[in-house]
Amino acid sequence: MADIPYKIYLSEDEIPRRWVNMKAVMHEKPEPIRNPSTFQPITREELEQLFCKELVEQELNESDLYIEIPEEVHNFYKMFRPSPLVRAYCLEKILDTPAQIYYKFEGTNTSGSHKLNSAAAQVYYAKEQGLTHLTTETGAGQWGTALAMACAYYNIDLTVYMVKVSSQQKPYRRAVIETYGGKVIPSPSDETDVGRRILKEFPDTGGSLGCAISEAIETALKTQNCRYVLGSAMDHVLLHQSIIGEETRIACEKYGIKPDMVIGCMGGGSNFGGLIAPFVIEKVTGRSDMRIIGVEPASCPTLTRGRYTYDFGDTGKTTPLLKMYTLGSGFIPSANHAGGLRFHGMNPIVSKLYHDGLLEARAVEQTDVFDAATVFARSEGILPAPESAHAIMAAMDEAIKCRETGEKKTILFGLSGTGYFDMAAYMSYNSGNMVDYVPSDEDLQRGFEGLPIVPKL
Amino acid sequence: MADIPYKIYLSEDEIPRRWVNMKAVMHEKPEPIRNPSTFQPITREELEQLFCKELVEQELNESDLYIEIPEEVHNFYKMFRPSPLVRAYCLEKILDTPAQIYYKFEGTNTSGSHKLNSAAAQVYYAKEQGLTHLTTETGAGQWGTALAMACAYYNIDLTVYMVKVSSQQKPYRRAVIETYGGKVIPSPSDETDVGRRILKEFPDTGGSLGCAISEAIETALKTQNCRYVLGSAMDHVLLHQSIIGEETRIACEKYGIKPDMVIGCMGGGSNFGGLIAPFVIEKVTGRSDMRIIGVEPASCPTLTRGRYTYDFGDTGKTTPLLKMYTLGSGFIPSANHAGGLRFHGMNPIVSKLYHDGLLEARAVEQTDVFDAATVFARSEGILPAPESAHAIMAAMDEAIKCRETGEKKTILFGLSGTGYFDMAAYMSYNSGNMVDYVPSDEDLQRGFEGLPIVPKL
Repeated sequence: MADIPYKIYLSEDEIPRRWVNMKAVMHEKPEPIRNPSTFQPITREELEQLFCKELVEQELNESDLYIEIPEEVHNFYKMFRPSPLVRAYCLEKILDTPAQIYYKFEGTNTSGSHKLNSAAAQVYYAKEQGLTHLTTETGAGQWGTALAMACAYYNIDLTVYMVKVSSQQKPYRRAVIETYGGKVIPSPSDETDVGRRILKEFPDTGGSLGCAISEAIETALKTQNCRYVLGSAMDHVLLHQSIIGEETRIACEKYGIKPDMVIGCMGGGSNFGGLIAPFVIEKVTGRSDMRIIGVEPASCPTLTRGRYTYDFGDTGKTTPLLKMYTLGSGFIPSANHAGGLRFHGMNPIVSKLYHDGLLEARAVEQTDVFDAATVFARSEGILPAPESAHAIMAAMDEAIKCRETGEKKTILFGLSGTGYFDMAAYMSYNSGNMVDYVPSDEDLQRGFEGLPIVPKL
Repeated sequence: MADIPYKIYLSEDEIPRRWVNMKAVMHEKPEPIRNPSTFQPITREELEQLFCKELVEQELNESDLYIEIPEEVHNFYKMFRPSPLVRAYCLEKILDTPAQIYYKFEGTNTSGSHKLNSAAAQVYYAKEQGLTHLTTETGAGQWGTALAMACAYYNIDLTVYMVKVSSQQKPYRRAVIETYGGKVIPSPSDETDVGRRILKEFPDTGGSLGCAISEAIETALKTQNCRYVLGSAMDHVLLHQSIIGEETRIACEKYGIKPDMVIGCMGGGSNFGGLIAPFVIEKVTGRSDMRIIGVEPASCPTLTRGRYTYDFGDTGKTTPLLKMYTLGSGFIPSANHAGGLRFHGMNPIVSKLYHDGLLEARAVEQTDVFDAATVFARSEGILPAPESAHAIMAAMDEAIKCRETGEKKTILFGLSGTGYFDMAAYMSYNSGNMVDYVPSDEDLQRGFEGLPIVPKL
């Protein structure tokens, strides 16, 4: 069919031995994380109360372009990496486009997404530090699953606060986490002060990610040899996800593929930031002028309609403050929003790159996303996660533009995961009952009103 | 870690270009398929009423050792093959065994199992024949999903009769089939004579595989340009599945791996028969003396406790007669049996090989199978289908024997698929509510009483 195979697999020897740190080459660094009480840049010691020592080190590292992947993490990576870079021959044919389309597919492991890349690293550092217990929150469940897999591998106890309504609607996700030995507690629970307080006030609440984060943090702080870990939004998570971009870059160089644009979906930004990392470095250092495009849901339009300011990471306002694009930590996307990517904020590096004009962003509506997901599933054979289908849709749009202009562009996108646990959303789409929702300016205004007041610095 | 990587991927050039046909080398051939009315060997013309022409050709072919894979099927295979041959380093470590364990993993495609290997071929031949419509039945849903994927690829209409209780208990499986454009009809339905008859007699029935087969056959016979296809049990399905074994053989030769035993799980026999095909050929032709072990559930013990005789393929007694090991077409495993592999019979080639002493068979109980599945999931990272976990369990048992004897055997097993849609069974196991069931001799006797009476030939 062509010199380039359907699926490009690097050999195990070619799995990158280092993560890449975009911050090291950025002309202007992102602004520091701040303590919400004092508004001072947060100290290493403050962060280490909550997070693993080495992860704090990575979070604050602005100088090292390369950070070595520990041997044991590299061995873990060999269980599920390298992931394939796939030439979308069948999709190209269906779209009748002169464009060449490639996707980097992160859904071949049991967690079903890229999340395992960071879980493998985070739990390793926790183990190295002598910790015996970790806590986290999970919404849709991909992160909880990935972390449970990593905790089983390194033999560490895990407590997952799972948004109650999610644990009820997705009992099978919960069952996967439990099969890997994770303890799942529907949140809000009566096991924490914050949970009990919320239950007293709202006994019938289905919970929220913000509440689950607060419970996971409280438990981490109160438990011996325990820390809190999270699956997106923060810079150290992006760092681990740079394995996606590095493998992609190496495969492209090996096969002479020169992408004109790189496209990814954005929630907290870790999959997107990891995919684009080496390409951002090439762009910042003047070696490339490719387009980099982030795609978000129109119902949670963080970059396209949010504000660039300091905000909390959770609705409970218990985290340090991050300078980022945000819709306000009280913003919750409409309940009919099916496809993940619900975080009100955006990773600080991605936010800064967007602010400085190095990235484009676009917002898309969910019925269009599921249209694209269905075309992709039927042509390429892979059932995509709704999140990942945001990137598919943008890639298809660009390929259709090429059909119209006759341009032979090379389009690369990140397929972050599979949709096996998202069939309720596909059923809603298949039955014609799925509706779109775009928040009004007034809706967004309500979210912005909850933003912390930033003092003159 | 070693010269052999975690995951051996052949290159696309190395994907086999031909299926292998065990029948061509068997000293004694399996007995012919027979017409249940006349008891005469069934004719090509009779089979072609129901099945695609080329598939009938393959079903009856006893002479050609190699059958070329059509170019278009080979291109389809490139979308999801080669599948990895994985060295189970982590499982070996957990088991503290001197044995080397390998597994061939067929669960990386969206259908979640090996079923797509045959679906890709069957739908291609249907298209070549100018058919526009296919019918089938599905129980757990893996076959229905695989066939829907292949029908989407070749643009053929598909009607799937899905056992009613299964379509209710597994709405997400149904949704995947529908996402790929398949029409799912819960069976028994009021769309066929047989369905209406059953509904009249048993209005509250949850259906059975036998009934769904009967409805699919009736619809195929009544619809223009339509045939019935099925996902296991018959010889042409095994032929297509030989791609599993051929890839395994090639990878083993390339890396100098010499298995002492090959292990697979058995339902209708297609995954097992496909995996072992090249190894059986080596054994029959005197080039190897490896052990070949099939594993079945103790609750549906076809080879280990069944009779070797002519029987129908369905409970409705509408199919041609196959000479095989069978528990009687009226045998239904206990409702508490969670893990698939429920077919009352066994593919005629596998049956004959077992009868002639070329294979071993063992039956295992389901809580032991889920114990093994959980150890495997936590060590190797992959969540196995309960069916596949039967093979895992036997492989682990053999590895533990090696620990006791100190023997460095090489154990190869087939991991036929993933368990993402089987979480209800895992939940039952995780909660401690799963129980074992072994049919009594009296239970089996009831099944044998329904066997057709074989006239003196």
